[in-house]
Amino acid sequence: MWQSCGHQSSTGQGKGLVGSNAASKVYVAPGEHDEFYAFLSGGFSGQVSVYGLPSGRLLKVIPVFSVDAEKAYGFNEETKPLLNTTHGFIPWDDAHHPELSQTKGVPDGRWLFINGNNTPRVARIDLSTFETVETIEIPNSGGNHSSPFTTENTEYIVAGTRFSVPFPQKDVAIGTYKENFKGALTYIKVAPEDGQMSIAFQILVPGYDYDLAHSGKGKSHGWTFFTTYNAEQSHTLKEVNASQYDKDYIAAVNWKKAEEYLAQGKYQEFPTAYYRNHYSEESHMATSEKIEKVKVLVPSECPGLIYYLPTPKSPHGVDVDPSGEYIVGNGKLSADMSVHSFDKMQKAIANEAFEKEIDGIPVLKYEEVLAGIVKEPGLGPLHTEFDGKGNAYTTFFISSEVVKWKLGTWEVLDRAPCYYSVGHLMIPGGDSKKPWGKYLVALNKITKDRYLPTGPEMNHSAQLYDISGDKMELILDFPTIGEPHYAQAIPADIVKPKSKKIYELGANKHPHAAKSEKEARVERNGNEIHVYMTTIRSHFAPDNIEGIKVGDKVYFHVTNLEQDWDVPHGFSVLGARTSELLIMPGQTETLLWEPRKEGVYPFYCTDFCSALHQEMQGYIRVSARNQNVPLKWGTGEQPES
Amino acid sequence: MWQSCGHQSSTGQGKGLVGSNAASKVYVAPGEHDEFYAFLSGGFSGQVSVYGLPSGRLLKVIPVFSVDAEKAYGFNEETKPLLNTTHGFIPWDDAHHPELSQTKGVPDGRWLFINGNNTPRVARIDLSTFETVETIEIPNSGGNHSSPFTTENTEYIVAGTRFSVPFPQKDVAIGTYKENFKGALTYIKVAPEDGQMSIAFQILVPGYDYDLAHSGKGKSHGWTFFTTYNAEQSHTLKEVNASQYDKDYIAAVNWKKAEEYLAQGKYQEFPTAYYRNHYSEESHMATSEKIEKVKVLVPSECPGLIYYLPTPKSPHGVDVDPSGEYIVGNGKLSADMSVHSFDKMQKAIANEAFEKEIDGIPVLKYEEVLAGIVKEPGLGPLHTEFDGKGNAYTTFFISSEVVKWKLGTWEVLDRAPCYYSVGHLMIPGGDSKKPWGKYLVALNKITKDRYLPTGPEMNHSAQLYDISGDKMELILDFPTIGEPHYAQAIPADIVKPKSKKIYELGANKHPHAAKSEKEARVERNGNEIHVYMTTIRSHFAPDNIEGIKVGDKVYFHVTNLEQDWDVPHGFSVLGARTSELLIMPGQTETLLWEPRKEGVYPFYCTDFCSALHQEMQGYIRVSARNQNVPLKWGTGEQPES
Repeated sequence: MWQSCGHQSSTGQGKGLVGSNAASKVYVAPGEHDEFYAFLSGGFSGQVSVYGLPSGRLLKVIPVFSVDAEKAYGFNEETKPLLNTTHGFIPWDDAHHPELSQTKGVPDGRWLFINGNNTPRVARIDLSTFETVETIEIPNSGGNHSSPFTTENTEYIVAGTRFSVPFPQKDVAIGTYKENFKGALTYIKVAPEDGQMSIAFQILVPGYDYDLAHSGKGKSHGWTFFTTYNAEQSHTLKEVNASQYDKDYIAAVNWKKAEEYLAQGKYQEFPTAYYRNHYSEESHMATSEKIEKVKVLVPSECPGLIYYLPTPKSPHGVDVDPSGEYIVGNGKLSADMSVHSFDKMQKAIANEAFEKEIDGIPVLKYEEVLAGIVKEPGLGPLHTEFDGKGNAYTTFFISSEVVKWKLGTWEVLDRAPCYYSVGHLMIPGGDSKKPWGKYLVALNKITKDRYLPTGPEMNHSAQLYDISGDKMELILDFPTIGEPHYAQAIPADIVKPKSKKIYELGANKHPHAAKSEKEARVERNGNEIHVYMTTIRSHFAPDNIEGIKVGDKVYFHVTNLEQDWDVPHGFSVLGARTSELLIMPGQTETLLWEPRKEGVYPFYCTDFCSALHQEMQGYIRVSARNQNVPLKWGTGEQPES
Repeated sequence: MWQSCGHQSSTGQGKGLVGSNAASKVYVAPGEHDEFYAFLSGGFSGQVSVYGLPSGRLLKVIPVFSVDAEKAYGFNEETKPLLNTTHGFIPWDDAHHPELSQTKGVPDGRWLFINGNNTPRVARIDLSTFETVETIEIPNSGGNHSSPFTTENTEYIVAGTRFSVPFPQKDVAIGTYKENFKGALTYIKVAPEDGQMSIAFQILVPGYDYDLAHSGKGKSHGWTFFTTYNAEQSHTLKEVNASQYDKDYIAAVNWKKAEEYLAQGKYQEFPTAYYRNHYSEESHMATSEKIEKVKVLVPSECPGLIYYLPTPKSPHGVDVDPSGEYIVGNGKLSADMSVHSFDKMQKAIANEAFEKEIDGIPVLKYEEVLAGIVKEPGLGPLHTEFDGKGNAYTTFFISSEVVKWKLGTWEVLDRAPCYYSVGHLMIPGGDSKKPWGKYLVALNKITKDRYLPTGPEMNHSAQLYDISGDKMELILDFPTIGEPHYAQAIPADIVKPKSKKIYELGANKHPHAAKSEKEARVERNGNEIHVYMTTIRSHFAPDNIEGIKVGDKVYFHVTNLEQDWDVPHGFSVLGARTSELLIMPGQTETLLWEPRKEGVYPFYCTDFCSALHQEMQGYIRVSARNQNVPLKWGTGEQPES
């Protein structure tokens, strides 16, 4: 199936075993555009990386959960509130699963959601600006891993706790795990018009580890499936203690039933606390709101809300095929893969084919819900996606491969090696009702010799396969930022028309905007200085400022007056203790500067903006508190000395 | 010269005008390695990006001046001291010019230096680990832009102030610029055996803006050339006021003469303060040292130390050809380009062909030092590099092109358009004595439509040209991180053999390392908790900890016991207020956690390490201060409840 390559690399080394036309398949010539946007999570980087496919070029890093000095994200006053939580300002998280919003089960290019795993949160990115515009904290959770998988019309995105914690959180001995620790499955409502998130309800579940999720589609629309591991409920040396049982569970949640129970008032309202943080494109500012209660549904009080499907063994991913019929459990320690049938599950529920009940949750009989078994396909199955042509593709971490198999017959059709230790995989639209099915990206955990070495630490590695034919063809390796866990991709034509070029200056409602040089000024309010500054090629107004005192808090509110595409200006001042500002046309951003010593400090534009960019510079004079230097400012005229 | 492309892109769009074999020229097949390492500055990102050429793939981002949550750089206790300055902990800077160390005028692959422009600093990266191992602050400077260009054997790297400031820094009116503001040219000694940096001396110069620099080579070894602009000494609306004069200057410094004056004691010792911060690979820790004086040479007291070469008009780059004879001034507002001759300069000095003297600096007569003029080559020349075959390549910002011209005859040989507004360019070894001259990278400031749009903010763009033939051939566009100002590249074979795979556990001298699970423990010292933790696939020791109180400072010292290539472990805990840790095999890193509320919090491995990575997790119990919960810890056994 592999051919020797006809091309010679410019390094003079042999090409290895890739298809003979691989170079032309991935090459996007200067000036041409990629076919797909791919959104890769950054894992421990806390961000989202946007790549073009098939070129594998990194188009942008979108800061989400981690502060980013390059864009002043989390440093400027406007975006700081996006990182507020009940644990304080938390400027880092572990971002795992990018999830595109869907309409009728197909990615629609409006928003991208992503979970924060460490300090449980979900963020929303607006795909007209490629900026993070909302974050929401998830209460009663520890490790928000099975998140933020969407329902068919983005009615909800979900958040299931990977680590159970005391519910509600309290000081108890770790050894009381079985008694005190619980899981929570959270449903976040997404407002259809503007995407704003709010927690609709939580479901209180046994203290297992809830690992991954997918919602049903088509016939199974209205349901969500969550994997569990650690049904053993161990709290130490889990690598041994949570790997004891032959089967753990897939939790099947009927969220339409949940809506009925909510409407009937069959919920408990728990005191809690979590933050919703929202960035307004009008004011260019984020604000925070603290919410202090949550509606909780208890399975024992809500029959029909949730069932457990026994699934071998410590299942990791749970993936639903485009028809909505097959629910694939990827039992990471299992030799075979079990696929459940939604129709059989419905029948088993109707027949009450239960093997037992756990905390009010009926456990369905394994044989009664099983659609089929993929026999010994590989070692360590983790995740499955679909091509829309009746085929499934599963990653195997231990045997380092992607295996293609047929839905319904369960036969293995093809296998391709991965370099090395593949985790998630991604097919554009591959978890939706209509996969675009042309490419497959394997997200590998171990890199070793795939690229030029860069010391002990190296980037992780993605591999791109052409899956348009019967056999998978490896066509490109490309390094990735952080540790990409999952990715989603969408045809460029869906997103491109939505992409904004500038912010309109006229629509700027920032409370400290100066919309023309005439409005540029400096005001003192106690020991707060507000500098209302403008930028246009290539000068600041004002560019000479005097009368600042040591101990003042100086807020530079900088408005970029440009209205041309791709003409940002930057701003920084010597000793800036956080970052610079990078201000897009029509936008206002605010840098806080607290000078410590008297002297005269330069500030300058940090983004090369014109042939006279090096001249875009000014000075700010800082005096001792007891010096009588009046506040004054100017541009193009010499302040009196 | 351009041909239509024979390849069809997978997007189905036409390819535009690139060479017909461009795809095969840039394609590096899966498993094969790039031919060159390219180090691109991040500009306002504060970092260095490492790309492979010709593929344009991003191999790694090296954090330097900006904190980086992904790698815990500037967040873990070990690397925080690298960001100490006299202005406090400054976790951001504007990184401009990567510079490879050289031996005999050729890059040797030992170290990479880079300047911090905003809060004046220089950093050194060790190319065996690709980590930042040293930073040094530059006193008496504002905007360390003309830096860190090296001398022929890395005797020195230099740092010239872009913005003049009061010397020494003090509270004076901005309007007293001409009287009080001065420039400083700093020479940093580099220890030949281990690369450690120390400031050897500064030269006090007039209050102009010192923009860029290059040292001589071959016959001009022993000299450094710095461009100036703003010889007008304006301090406001510089875009107008600093563009008045027909000529500014290139300052030619005889640093061997400076060494003689230093040896003779002809310097003034000024009180000042700056930090040297050094990371030890043995202890895996950085330490800071504050230095409180600097040796200053004053030109009027040191004849022969420095001369000015008049150069039209606001010259930006100054570039010395491989022979050391030609000193190219890139007068950004000049219609022509002036090239000076080193031989003629020597003769003019001997003949005292001076037009005047400024603050003790003789100004040489323009005609007496001129080698030739490149007539109307383009608009807005910024930078020049060389191919080692007698040709020079200059970027033109305003006319957006690279122009190839011949040294000595000054004739234009070729021109290639850039998309758009090119700043620096880079040829591997292109500013050294022996350029490798195969590729040219144009670093463009404006991107607009070159890639799929990503909202108002988009990545900047690099373009790769094949320059092995007579005509430049555009073969690839690739997006870049931050705003790459300059780049350097080196054949992979020089760096690759130096690259470390792991840190040896036996050599780990971190004061809080636990080198086996037996050494894992928890200690209380007042309200400080020290957790000596180990990681190995796939568990922590300890993984259950009790007895922590609200208000404690918990230091997790985590040692990765693995000794296999590319098996890092991560560590984080719910509510971690900075970042996670990413610990390479054999390394120890420390995370500070300050729990605010009682409860039981999960911690886990943040880097997917094995099939049982999801199980690599533990709990830490936090009690109120008045609760009597004894300190205890365990792995694999249940703490008493």
